[in-house]
Amino acid sequence: MKSIYFDNAASAPMLESVVQSMSQVLMEMTGNPSGTHKHGRKCRAAIEKSRKSIAENFNASIGEIFFTSGGTESNNTALNCSVDQYGVQRIITTPIEHPSVLNTLSFLKTKRGIQVEFLAVDNMGRIDLAELENKINAQNDRTLVSIMHANNEIGVINPIAEIGEICKSNNILFHTDAVQTVGHLPIDLNSMYISFLSASGHKFHGPKGIGFLYVNSNNIIQPFINGGSQERNVRGGTENLAGIVGMAEALEYCKNNLDKKRQHVVALRQYFIEKIKTALPPTVKIMSMEDPEDCLYTILNIMVPQTAKSDLLLMNLDIAGISASGGSACSSGAEKGSHVIGAITNNKQAGKSVRFSFSFLNTTEEVSQTIEVLKKSL
Amino acid sequence: MKSIYFDNAASAPMLESVVQSMSQVLMEMTGNPSGTHKHGRKCRAAIEKSRKSIAENFNASIGEIFFTSGGTESNNTALNCSVDQYGVQRIITTPIEHPSVLNTLSFLKTKRGIQVEFLAVDNMGRIDLAELENKINAQNDRTLVSIMHANNEIGVINPIAEIGEICKSNNILFHTDAVQTVGHLPIDLNSMYISFLSASGHKFHGPKGIGFLYVNSNNIIQPFINGGSQERNVRGGTENLAGIVGMAEALEYCKNNLDKKRQHVVALRQYFIEKIKTALPPTVKIMSMEDPEDCLYTILNIMVPQTAKSDLLLMNLDIAGISASGGSACSSGAEKGSHVIGAITNNKQAGKSVRFSFSFLNTTEEVSQTIEVLKKSL
Repeated sequence: MKSIYFDNAASAPMLESVVQSMSQVLMEMTGNPSGTHKHGRKCRAAIEKSRKSIAENFNASIGEIFFTSGGTESNNTALNCSVDQYGVQRIITTPIEHPSVLNTLSFLKTKRGIQVEFLAVDNMGRIDLAELENKINAQNDRTLVSIMHANNEIGVINPIAEIGEICKSNNILFHTDAVQTVGHLPIDLNSMYISFLSASGHKFHGPKGIGFLYVNSNNIIQPFINGGSQERNVRGGTENLAGIVGMAEALEYCKNNLDKKRQHVVALRQYFIEKIKTALPPTVKIMSMEDPEDCLYTILNIMVPQTAKSDLLLMNLDIAGISASGGSACSSGAEKGSHVIGAITNNKQAGKSVRFSFSFLNTTEEVSQTIEVLKKSL
Repeated sequence: MKSIYFDNAASAPMLESVVQSMSQVLMEMTGNPSGTHKHGRKCRAAIEKSRKSIAENFNASIGEIFFTSGGTESNNTALNCSVDQYGVQRIITTPIEHPSVLNTLSFLKTKRGIQVEFLAVDNMGRIDLAELENKINAQNDRTLVSIMHANNEIGVINPIAEIGEICKSNNILFHTDAVQTVGHLPIDLNSMYISFLSASGHKFHGPKGIGFLYVNSNNIIQPFINGGSQERNVRGGTENLAGIVGMAEALEYCKNNLDKKRQHVVALRQYFIEKIKTALPPTVKIMSMEDPEDCLYTILNIMVPQTAKSDLLLMNLDIAGISASGGSACSSGAEKGSHVIGAITNNKQAGKSVRFSFSFLNTTEEVSQTIEVLKKSL
């Protein structure tokens, strides 16, 4: 049985060319990038070449890109440093952020006394920019806005350019978790007001365990992870050399193939949507917005009514060789229900939601097979 | 010109078998380890197999090993969590710890009001256990002791079993940075009182960007990096799967070849010491203790008098194809002088120190060639 991988938003398959580059780095680049000798300089050069390539991708400068161990560390860094170095006392966010934002905010609230305010989201996960402005204006405390670019469970895209303009005119910091969009949507950081942007390599066909944080050059942050003078004194720790090289190569590939990849996946997703509407019972609800202008084209979330059968849906898909995911990644095996679905439906138990997420490697044939399995399971 | 790599304490060369395993993981293990489907379970199984292998190495239990992005993050985690979760108010340490400890302590002092106390070190970098006991007894505040297993610049080994006993009898926490010793010295965590132990993969022929923190099962820590429920809710972020597998394999190799590797390097180092004494001017001083019982056998630090020529020593070695390092890794290129040499000589400008650090891949022939270059350069 050929397996079908529809969990690309959780982790996208590595590109073969990227694996080859990484293997070469692992084998040949002995040395610590901080070493001043030949071995060290070779490592350093590879890191700086990767940084340049990533910065160019976003129309950013090399001094604005800092490597981290992933999107989670990037989010932790932006939020913690805003509090510790910038004296931020209030953070405005949404209830459907990733746990690496929500749990960091919970920590900052409990341990640092930070005020955390949540914007409302509608039944599609959208925020209201007027509410954002009102909240900002209601209080003069030093404020940070942290709003993700696209949601990881339902795919709703937030208007980060407009949010940035609002933050700019109020002279406050703006962080966006762009883990789901980097590599999939073009992002021009020079044309927007964004203080911090988080990204993760394995979401765009790079390796797991590497990411970066963009810090706008108007801001200077102190380390979240203290140590040596790596990353221009902003992030201690010997660099994950192979990971950095692999991430940069994967991003370069995504940039060079963006339109082609996008067209393929948009068509695939549209086919999936049509099949759901025509071949599945009408009780199956599409939770993501259909227009790829409103929703990240790699993500499609559906909900089936809560029944004894629906609880086994993911398992039945898995048995049929189809990997998809529940509302939230749940490493413990115990289903808690998704905080995202809970926020947009006002009911965590509204039904059983399943996220299908795609890459350019998926085919319409795989969609057809999946629809057949869904039909039988429901 | 064949190059000579004597900077193994900065980063040790990867084992070919480890690179092969990692490449296979990168290529074949698509999926997020938190995924509940087939792809995810395969990743999860690889992580847990690695954790088991690492735990067994230290006679620890699998529940005591937490993966991090490296030694620096491990040190940051142990120190920050001691303060945030355990209410530690005073930390006793030494002036020759790694910057990831010293700079974190400086942060905790400035931003969290923690009291930091330094033990004196003698001219060989040794601490006095009586002073440690006196300091502990002088104050009843909640205290953590953070003392490295072996120093990264001069190699001096601290008696962590005895330090642990002192901490145990005073009912306080003990953290040790064992980044330089893991893989090189046997460590039985079941027979010692150690609350936290930090390690880094690339110091024992594994990849850069991965490490682990041992947390004794009597302690439960909250995350330093907040996020998903990875690492049993202790460390958020998708796991660096290939890094974890590579680190576990490298450690397994080191365990299986410990005696052979050690004998080889001890002999090599002894040969180096004899050559320094017989072939170089008597002004060249050996800064590391000679007995491998007192000093980590992979490290040999020498000091040459400060002259115009000595400033070019590392450069001359580099030109001759020999990679060694100054007192401290200095990514900026500006020589600040080593805080370790400063602490043991009471004079940061006492001379020019050079650290040679070895692995089982080095040969006596390489030592002879290096001695010839040193002779010419001095």
